[in-house]
Amino acid sequence: MTRDFIDTQDWSWEDLEGILGDAVDLKRTPLQPLLEGRSIALLFFNPSLRTRTSFELGAWQLGAKAIVLEPGKSAWSMAFDEGVVMDGDAEEHVREAARVLSTYCDAIAVRAFPRFKDWSIDREDLVVRGFARHATVPIINMETITHPCQELAHLLALREWFDTTDLSGRKYVMTWVPHPRPLNTAVANSAVRIATRAGMDVTLLCPDERWLLDERYLEDARGNAERTGGSFQVSHDLAAYDDADVVYAKSWGCLPLYGDPEAQSAAAAEFRHFIVDEAKMARTANAAFSHCLPARRNVKATDAVMDAPSSLVIPEAENRLHVQKALMARMLAGVATNH
Amino acid sequence: MTRDFIDTQDWSWEDLEGILGDAVDLKRTPLQPLLEGRSIALLFFNPSLRTRTSFELGAWQLGAKAIVLEPGKSAWSMAFDEGVVMDGDAEEHVREAARVLSTYCDAIAVRAFPRFKDWSIDREDLVVRGFARHATVPIINMETITHPCQELAHLLALREWFDTTDLSGRKYVMTWVPHPRPLNTAVANSAVRIATRAGMDVTLLCPDERWLLDERYLEDARGNAERTGGSFQVSHDLAAYDDADVVYAKSWGCLPLYGDPEAQSAAAAEFRHFIVDEAKMARTANAAFSHCLPARRNVKATDAVMDAPSSLVIPEAENRLHVQKALMARMLAGVATNH
Amino acid sequence: MTRDFIDTQDWSWEDLEGILGDAVDLKRTPLQPLLEGRSIALLFFNPSLRTRTSFELGAWQLGAKAIVLEPGKSAWSMAFDEGVVMDGDAEEHVREAARVLSTYCDAIAVRAFPRFKDWSIDREDLVVRGFARHATVPIINMETITHPCQELAHLLALREWFDTTDLSGRKYVMTWVPHPRPLNTAVANSAVRIATRAGMDVTLLCPDERWLLDERYLEDARGNAERTGGSFQVSHDLAAYDDADVVYAKSWGCLPLYGDPEAQSAAAAEFRHFIVDEAKMARTANAAFSHCLPARRNVKATDAVMDAPSSLVIPEAENRLHVQKALMARMLAGVATNH
Repeated sequence: MTRDFIDTQDWSWEDLEGILGDAVDLKRTPLQPLLEGRSIALLFFNPSLRTRTSFELGAWQLGAKAIVLEPGKSAWSMAFDEGVVMDGDAEEHVREAARVLSTYCDAIAVRAFPRFKDWSIDREDLVVRGFARHATVPIINMETITHPCQELAHLLALREWFDTTDLSGRKYVMTWVPHPRPLNTAVANSAVRIATRAGMDVTLLCPDERWLLDERYLEDARGNAERTGGSFQVSHDLAAYDDADVVYAKSWGCLPLYGDPEAQSAAAAEFRHFIVDEAKMARTANAAFSHCLPARRNVKATDAVMDAPSSLVIPEAENRLHVQKALMARMLAGVATNH
Repeated sequence: MTRDFIDTQDWSWEDLEGILGDAVDLKRTPLQPLLEGRSIALLFFNPSLRTRTSFELGAWQLGAKAIVLEPGKSAWSMAFDEGVVMDGDAEEHVREAARVLSTYCDAIAVRAFPRFKDWSIDREDLVVRGFARHATVPIINMETITHPCQELAHLLALREWFDTTDLSGRKYVMTWVPHPRPLNTAVANSAVRIATRAGMDVTLLCPDERWLLDERYLEDARGNAERTGGSFQVSHDLAAYDDADVVYAKSWGCLPLYGDPEAQSAAAAEFRHFIVDEAKMARTANAAFSHCLPARRNVKATDAVMDAPSSLVIPEAENRLHVQKALMARMLAGVATNH
Repeated sequence: MTRDFIDTQDWSWEDLEGILGDAVDLKRTPLQPLLEGRSIALLFFNPSLRTRTSFELGAWQLGAKAIVLEPGKSAWSMAFDEGVVMDGDAEEHVREAARVLSTYCDAIAVRAFPRFKDWSIDREDLVVRGFARHATVPIINMETITHPCQELAHLLALREWFDTTDLSGRKYVMTWVPHPRPLNTAVANSAVRIATRAGMDVTLLCPDERWLLDERYLEDARGNAERTGGSFQVSHDLAAYDDADVVYAKSWGCLPLYGDPEAQSAAAAEFRHFIVDEAKMARTANAAFSHCLPARRNVKATDAVMDAPSSLVIPEAENRLHVQKALMARMLAGVATNH
């Protein structure tokens, strides 16, 4: 187990399974004083409803205190480059923010979406990596260019739906869906990783090759599939829905047009038919449907799909609370407080 | 007792009296572990000082955890219409927000002022009603187009001032007062309801018929008065102050010019003399004065009136804490947590 | 001991020493139920990372509840002048805000930077003084035109560095440093007060007489030095670094050009060489370096200085937590709750 929880790919399957097991227990018994007197700083560089609520409430249900900070709004704006001459907007460097928060709190959780100008920069994940470099306490990724907490919640929801911890061999479709604006690839990056990690037969369905994910995640997916006996393929054909056991939907911007939101939206506008609807779901093997929230209804998926009995959007969102509590407990419980 | 606390009009007088009784007890003994381990989400679509402090602190004093969320600022912006194609600004639908928060928390409280474009839409109270429709936990109104928590605090302040739980027969004037901008009718709607419910002789004093409240609230006031043996009348004459026992002040925009703030403000500018001042208060029977806060000094009421011994603005604001604690305890204590 | 903690100058040295002693104990044993069931309102008119985290977490570690409010953002904007006709932007007067919060909470802490238009107004410190005038509970200054909590944290960091509570006779340089924008004089005002109070030989180093602090603080520094046997002088010569034991850095705007940020920045641009660098530090007697945070790297001080073993920026920031807990405990523990 690494100290930080930035990418599930850095964690052993055994550790991830351990968290899921603890989450099941915490779902049954939510109030457990596992982290009495401990504290966690939650840094939101971007908005949040579920993540904030589930972390803040989850910490409290374990006896810990979460402090919510919003750099650039209620807190100072921040610089992340090493050696920078700070004569721009940023008043504070992550070196100080990370080290000071480490003296106050037992962990630091960070939400920092990409800046959407230059993917070659955004893919370095500088914000959360900057905190990890300089903090002396564990770091948790609350969504940056991946969303590992969502992966755990998603996996738990699938295990509950199929009533088994063994998902190997299930046909899993990660489908791109429309959205008026180009969005983060984080959840898609995360989905192909965790689904292949679980040994499923995974198809990444997207309009054309412009919507391929960064090669880093495709490689991880291929490697995972090889190790777990699953498979990973890319498709641009809606026939990918045929006989699927799981349909996971997400919109994201296309990387070749990164930094040009109008061009990305124009390109996406030709693929409004990628919306998940009843006709497509009828092609599946009565697949479970899910989407991390928020989700635009009747743009990404129709009301009928969102509200179907096989929709896992609410259980998956609920599971955020349980898996994050298990994660915090596992990361902090064994570590003596440095305060 | 209905599950939700959206309008006092939906609650029996016995239940409202029960809350006031519990509030008196909680005012004496603030720390009572009535809601240990429970949680409540506080959604603020608009700013707040008293409401936020009193709910967040009140929950804590009962052993519960309040989570403060600000959709559109720290959280996602939201859609409320059913069946909508979400290709506008909103990233999240109330169906999801309400259902997910219901899996995390034991209650959801909502502050959502009108949008001030079209009263025929605003009067449907779509935000809080949307949460009530989709949530699986109780909903509390923290001010929308009515302000029921303020009603309870106001009623308790009057009972304390007159040193009796029986307010019937008191002469109560709800007076419109000036303000540079057209404001929400919520507190006025609430005041005519609760004052008639308490059996008082209630006069709604406003410049002319353009400032009449929505017929829904006037009808409720008339019906309440009939049932309780009180009375309800409208006046445009400052003689309404004569022999009053209570003067409750509030500014609101006029409904016929709704959606046109400049026209509303221009219309209101002719009635700056509606300010509550010492001369008007001298016409009363040494009336108690009150106003929900915030209140613009020397615009709505003079310093002398605000600071007089008969001013209940501070005690009424303090009572928010006590009545809301009583309300939360009553709504949640009997309900087994679903978590 | 006065009721409020607005300026250390109003507190006896014995009381300040008492707080520092308690802080040492709380640093060793962070979780102490000294304020069980108590509450404090934290009002932020300006952003904060350390102050917010340390007060919110500190209150919690003592068993108390902190409520974070942001007037003008999540709460109402506020008026502070007495007798004002409130027909501008402010919806709420400090008279009400202070009195209402006093009914909810056991203390009110306020961060309110100057408005940077007119120093003759800003120097009256109207916001925190307004709260002190109208509140019925103790007020704590979280930085206005002075920063007394930082003074305590700074003093504790110096005592730890020199491993003695007796700092008398140490050569202390408070140096102005560059910054693209004209900043608050608060930390400089505070530094010359507390350093002379501790009996050190204090030099205020600034580019020229335009950067002199308000005479109020210079007078306090001279008076303190006289009483404690230390000294206080002003210098515009970098030779002030020679043989220094402490270098404390801060940028501030020049008062003669107050209200004209462009002119202030243009004046400051000629003095970029005031940056604290290794060459200057080499002139000192291996001085401790510090700066309250946030600090712009390579503008105010070089990376090498910020990261040197003799840099106290992180320990000083950490001490905020400990001294503020000691302060809250001392201010509130003896006072019976009025709730």
